[in-house]
Amino acid sequence: MDDSLMKSMLQEYGAITLEGIQSYIPNKEPKKYLYDLMHEYPKRGGKGFRPGLCIASCKAYGGNLSQSINSAITLELLHNAFLVHDDVEDESFYRRNKPTLHQANNKSIAINVGDAMQVLGLSPLLNNRKILGDKVSMKIFLEIQNMITESVEGQAMELGWRKDNISNLNEGDYLRMILKKTCWYTCIYPLRIGAIIGTKGKINPEIFNRLGYFMGTSFQIQDDILNLIAEEEKYGKEIGGDIIEGKRTLMLIHLLEKCSNSERNQIQDFLSIPIKERTNESVNRILNLMNHYGSINYAKKTAKYLAGAALMEFYAIFSSLPDTKDKALIENIITYMINREY
Amino acid sequence: MDDSLMKSMLQEYGAITLEGIQSYIPNKEPKKYLYDLMHEYPKRGGKGFRPGLCIASCKAYGGNLSQSINSAITLELLHNAFLVHDDVEDESFYRRNKPTLHQANNKSIAINVGDAMQVLGLSPLLNNRKILGDKVSMKIFLEIQNMITESVEGQAMELGWRKDNISNLNEGDYLRMILKKTCWYTCIYPLRIGAIIGTKGKINPEIFNRLGYFMGTSFQIQDDILNLIAEEEKYGKEIGGDIIEGKRTLMLIHLLEKCSNSERNQIQDFLSIPIKERTNESVNRILNLMNHYGSINYAKKTAKYLAGAALMEFYAIFSSLPDTKDKALIENIITYMINREY
Repeated sequence: MDDSLMKSMLQEYGAITLEGIQSYIPNKEPKKYLYDLMHEYPKRGGKGFRPGLCIASCKAYGGNLSQSINSAITLELLHNAFLVHDDVEDESFYRRNKPTLHQANNKSIAINVGDAMQVLGLSPLLNNRKILGDKVSMKIFLEIQNMITESVEGQAMELGWRKDNISNLNEGDYLRMILKKTCWYTCIYPLRIGAIIGTKGKINPEIFNRLGYFMGTSFQIQDDILNLIAEEEKYGKEIGGDIIEGKRTLMLIHLLEKCSNSERNQIQDFLSIPIKERTNESVNRILNLMNHYGSINYAKKTAKYLAGAALMEFYAIFSSLPDTKDKALIENIITYMINREY
Repeated sequence: MDDSLMKSMLQEYGAITLEGIQSYIPNKEPKKYLYDLMHEYPKRGGKGFRPGLCIASCKAYGGNLSQSINSAITLELLHNAFLVHDDVEDESFYRRNKPTLHQANNKSIAINVGDAMQVLGLSPLLNNRKILGDKVSMKIFLEIQNMITESVEGQAMELGWRKDNISNLNEGDYLRMILKKTCWYTCIYPLRIGAIIGTKGKINPEIFNRLGYFMGTSFQIQDDILNLIAEEEKYGKEIGGDIIEGKRTLMLIHLLEKCSNSERNQIQDFLSIPIKERTNESVNRILNLMNHYGSINYAKKTAKYLAGAALMEFYAIFSSLPDTKDKALIENIITYMINREY
């Protein structure tokens, strides 16, 4: 499969998911600061990895789209909820080429919209019962609950590091945080849930954990790299935003390990002042240091290793399944995740 | 029943609920900025109205405590989630005699803890299945989903009024907002859910809507009055905080209707500046105007009328049930809600 076919499949699944999202959001008051925003925000688009992986995994295991669509809608709506709150928590300015929801409205309204997305995001799961039966539906509900729990745990780890201005982190700390914050909800659970549906609950979902871990960490590292070097318009967020936010990326952790003591002190000073006082000049200085100490190249290499490991896992798990377009889609997503430019 | 017996019953039900909450929150990492906070926050206490009403309604309809405890735990944990986010959204400083969670940590961490409470709050409902069966459990799950939805809708209304600095509101607007933001989750759904459990799903839960509306609005108006005139220590929040936050209370709405044009302009100016720039002097001026125009007395009268209507509804609904301690508890909560001093 090539990237353009992958993109058209993701777009197809994404469009059906978006249509489903719209059908779950009421068209009633209060509109201006609740339901209108909930209708509009998911339309900003996105790559559609989560619903795509869920639907593809279901179909690769012999299921069909209508069996997996409710779960895909839930995954995407919860992803939107997470983005809205994450942007408030990180004080981010742009998301998908537009001002973040709290920038366009205010923080209070954004928090509330995120809450509403979180609760409405569970509704499609209740409709699973008619299609999938009680047992499989309950399994999926528990998967989703555990998924959200992993995400808030990862978020708590990252926010704690920033609050306490922790700078003696190593690569293992970073990967554990990303596992919780990103991998479970971006890769592992979408694959698990799809396979549970496709096999009518017969699969042991734990087999996807390593695959999703390698995929998700590779994806996140690549995302963090793009935050530093992508073209702003394609990327959809402000370039260098992670440095301003003090995000503990693999590059920053690598830099703090490799740089001189005086440079380390400078970086720690930068991380200890409020976000609003951090200057573009300081950001550029840190970016230069990352280039100087090879931190970005190191991260690129790590992302490639992890993607390679993900492919190995993919073949181990999926080789016994018939060769379908959806199986190829999952394979292509893995290779794309680390080659993408935005 | 007298208030001291009511309080001891609420305390008993509250203590069992709190114990249950603790059992649902993991004792594992990340502790410092997640699970420790989730364990501690609910221990700040509170009046325990929501679990109390749920358990009492269940028992009044022939059920028992162990049938209703899971739902009571969910109600209380979701209430805590709501308080944490509400305080961030309102930029409040104190809650239950302590700094709000975001003041004690930061806003990002508080948002994330609220998210975690919201998702974990649903776990007890899954355990309902073993005790109450699938059908009643699913009914309760839907009640809880609708409950959260009503609350975020009410919150969106109130936040929208503040964002757009709306000041031409009337009493009907206020009561509709309070119905959504407070009544459903504080009174209506706790009573409904308890009765659904007690009757094994046989009751029509709609019969509690008017009762809960009268109770909840009466309760909220009294709460808003106490925000202006209570003793700070008993009340647990900063006195006059609602005025600083620009909250559209019945008193403020009454005042804006009754005051002179120039006074109205002054108040509107006050409401249009950022919260941090609002002075204590201006707050006192508005408080004096509320006294001058009888706004506080008007609100007190309204709260009493509503409580009277709530009692009428209570007798209409509950008179055919056997006279039990739990039925008397509900009656006493209604009378207490408007006579309380904190």
